[in-house]
Amino acid sequence: MTPDQIRLVDALAGHLPARVIVTDPAEIAPWETDWRGRWHGHAALLLAPTSTAEVAAIVAAAAAHRVPLVPQGGNTSMVGGATPPADGGAAILSLRRMNAIRSLDAEAGLAVVEAGVILAELHAVAATVGMRFPLSLGAKGSATIGGLVSTNAGGTQVLRFGTMRGLVAGLEAVLPDGQIHDGLAALKKDNRGYDLTQLLIGGEGTLGVVTAATVRLVPAVAARTVAWVGLADPAAALTLLRRFQRASEGVESFELLPAESLDAVLRHIPGTRAPLSGAHPWHALIEVTAAHDAREAPAAIVEHMLGAALADGLVADATIAASEAQADAFWRIRESISEAERATGPAAQHDISVPIEAMPRFMIEAAAACEARFPGTRASGFGHLGDGNVHFHVRAPAGADRTRWLAQEAPVVTQFVDDLVVAAGGSISAEHGIGQMKLGELERLSSPARMSALRAIKAALDPHNIMNPGKLVALAPRGPAE
Amino acid sequence: MTPDQIRLVDALAGHLPARVIVTDPAEIAPWETDWRGRWHGHAALLLAPTSTAEVAAIVAAAAAHRVPLVPQGGNTSMVGGATPPADGGAAILSLRRMNAIRSLDAEAGLAVVEAGVILAELHAVAATVGMRFPLSLGAKGSATIGGLVSTNAGGTQVLRFGTMRGLVAGLEAVLPDGQIHDGLAALKKDNRGYDLTQLLIGGEGTLGVVTAATVRLVPAVAARTVAWVGLADPAAALTLLRRFQRASEGVESFELLPAESLDAVLRHIPGTRAPLSGAHPWHALIEVTAAHDAREAPAAIVEHMLGAALADGLVADATIAASEAQADAFWRIRESISEAERATGPAAQHDISVPIEAMPRFMIEAAAACEARFPGTRASGFGHLGDGNVHFHVRAPAGADRTRWLAQEAPVVTQFVDDLVVAAGGSISAEHGIGQMKLGELERLSSPARMSALRAIKAALDPHNIMNPGKLVALAPRGPAE
Repeated sequence: MTPDQIRLVDALAGHLPARVIVTDPAEIAPWETDWRGRWHGHAALLLAPTSTAEVAAIVAAAAAHRVPLVPQGGNTSMVGGATPPADGGAAILSLRRMNAIRSLDAEAGLAVVEAGVILAELHAVAATVGMRFPLSLGAKGSATIGGLVSTNAGGTQVLRFGTMRGLVAGLEAVLPDGQIHDGLAALKKDNRGYDLTQLLIGGEGTLGVVTAATVRLVPAVAARTVAWVGLADPAAALTLLRRFQRASEGVESFELLPAESLDAVLRHIPGTRAPLSGAHPWHALIEVTAAHDAREAPAAIVEHMLGAALADGLVADATIAASEAQADAFWRIRESISEAERATGPAAQHDISVPIEAMPRFMIEAAAACEARFPGTRASGFGHLGDGNVHFHVRAPAGADRTRWLAQEAPVVTQFVDDLVVAAGGSISAEHGIGQMKLGELERLSSPARMSALRAIKAALDPHNIMNPGKLVALAPRGPAE
Repeated sequence: MTPDQIRLVDALAGHLPARVIVTDPAEIAPWETDWRGRWHGHAALLLAPTSTAEVAAIVAAAAAHRVPLVPQGGNTSMVGGATPPADGGAAILSLRRMNAIRSLDAEAGLAVVEAGVILAELHAVAATVGMRFPLSLGAKGSATIGGLVSTNAGGTQVLRFGTMRGLVAGLEAVLPDGQIHDGLAALKKDNRGYDLTQLLIGGEGTLGVVTAATVRLVPAVAARTVAWVGLADPAAALTLLRRFQRASEGVESFELLPAESLDAVLRHIPGTRAPLSGAHPWHALIEVTAAHDAREAPAAIVEHMLGAALADGLVADATIAASEAQADAFWRIRESISEAERATGPAAQHDISVPIEAMPRFMIEAAAACEARFPGTRASGFGHLGDGNVHFHVRAPAGADRTRWLAQEAPVVTQFVDDLVVAAGGSISAEHGIGQMKLGELERLSSPARMSALRAIKAALDPHNIMNPGKLVALAPRGPAE
């Protein structure tokens, strides 16, 4: 441990249960590297509090002794946001033991959930009372509420329910000076100055530690209808999406993928089969749901809408899943794309968004531009059309050396893609955040107005730069302890 | 003008059209006092730019010359938020001439609207393309988009569509150093660091000047059903609200009022009549709407729900407006309460919110507590039950001297009410903001964590305290110009 870390442990030892303070390297090791093994850091100290009061005590002491804290939930960041710095001087602040669901009110549609509660557990508990928490993503078995809040997580249901920002009704957090901000009360109207809850959502732990959140629940799904559609181009898909949205508030997902993504899945993922018999350049996966007291079945809506779209030629072909098993099979195709594309070779992957109206053109033109600029590459986007959010992958030329291409070519490709995104008025980070990975691109591509505001906010709320330093926005190194 | 103001005018005069710089006291006078005549200030200078570039030039020069700016739209603040300080040293920055609707895309449901556009005008323009902007309030003929954004305005449709925070998809603003923040692109997913748009919404012009917003539009209402219901108590009203919300996504308003509010209207507002024949202690006004392509008429939903509620005794009586004229008559009762209660004598009025589940109990218990603590007063709440937001009025004892009571007793009553609100986990400002009026109560009742965070943010983004100083959060007086 560093001298600062030793002083911090000395300060805390008398006040916190021994189990909170972890210095055994073997116990810490799994949390020093991100889940994909791309970011490596070091921390000689891990703190695992079980209450908000313990978190407050830790943060206050860490501020006094200038020990940086790296808040960590399920360690599922896609951008190195929860990996400690390499110098070993920080302490990991694990929220996993703060895992109580403090309350759940089905009638009000609200739950107060601690930061360490795992997303899948919240799903399960909500289901026991006929409700659901309408946000899901691949890492649901590990990702925690605190991390989901701090990264303003998205997923596959944003189209209808929004990101975490739309699902958080209140927050409790420990600010960088150790004070507790109690904003858990779910108030639909509250105009008492700057909205600290909104500032902490997506703050990536750099402005404080989220310790609990009041989240919205909605009635459980009683019926869903999943359809697979073949289309000529993304513009037709957007038109179809708009029609669906006008017809029903129950449109939960509208995922778009090109033929080559489907082909990659069929080739590399055992047990998958094409939903439609013919070949189509583009495909959409649509899910419409209804709660148990809905007055119209989603199947009727989907049949009506697809019938009309087939009749007027907007879609080339369509099929409705005849069973839950078939619906799951459709979804498995969508969820296997990343895995299938990994099997086809190395790729530069981008989590980007542009205004929804601009997305059809962007998908076509950006892919063409990439392939022209980097001969031999293949570029395509797939994902959440309804959110203006695609995962835009540029695959290496056939025969490229994996390690060399990813190290030397991929970053150039990424800058090229990011420039296209900015030109289209979009965001270089749609749902994954900035973390360490996009720090340089954020700096390169943001207006001076945005960057100076981000720095001013960070410096004002965390003057000693102890909260997750080196993530989201870079500041000058911290000064010596006073 | 002050020497600083003279220097500012000198700096701007060569660069801006003469019409932008207003120094004629007669032209400025109407904007020195708020619309209700409760707050009086003085400004020897008013600046009325017509473009974002002009706003940026003004803010940069004002920062350089340390002239505080008071942004003003329709001057309809309820809390003195747009009234200049009394010392005359500030300049009013009027956004009213920035009144272009830059674009409107009905298909995407988005409009880019400049700060000075009046709410009623946006309503009218949206209607021409079959859309609507789903936020309305009494001051719609004067209130501007910039002011609505800066105060996170609410109104009567928050139940379904949320406050301005839920309707703003992007913002353009000039930050306190004169830099332009261009965040107009409507991105459903955008995780590029702290959300500046969210920080400016509800910032009351203290962190920068909103110059334009991208706002969401929804399909125009094709059919509405308005019902009036007699109930035993607020708890029954909440149960009914929950049932309606489960049955339909089209519940737009659910307003609750006690018998005495209805009685005051019937007594003092000519042409009003009771919707129900019998007497009931509480009343609810419910509106359900549908767009033109909805698959079920709102009338069927309302009839079904009220039929069930009458059958099981949840409501005592109910009637559905048989015509648009009758629907308007029901709404006129609700909208006349404040005027009617003014006719009954002076009152201390409070715009407060508590968690919705807590509202029924709060309305009963807070009224009883006030009447016990201040003998002779009559207390009651009415308003947006579905938002947890009531206007809680405590009326002076019969025969009280109006001026004396409002000056001496009302502030004591307000502190008492605010204490009850805080004890119930609520907000002392639900939809009107802080402005000048609630500065002291915000300070008195907020946690040190909240206050220090608000101050740190303000000082960081506006280090010279030139943006609407003395509103929302008090800072130390500004220093001399450098």
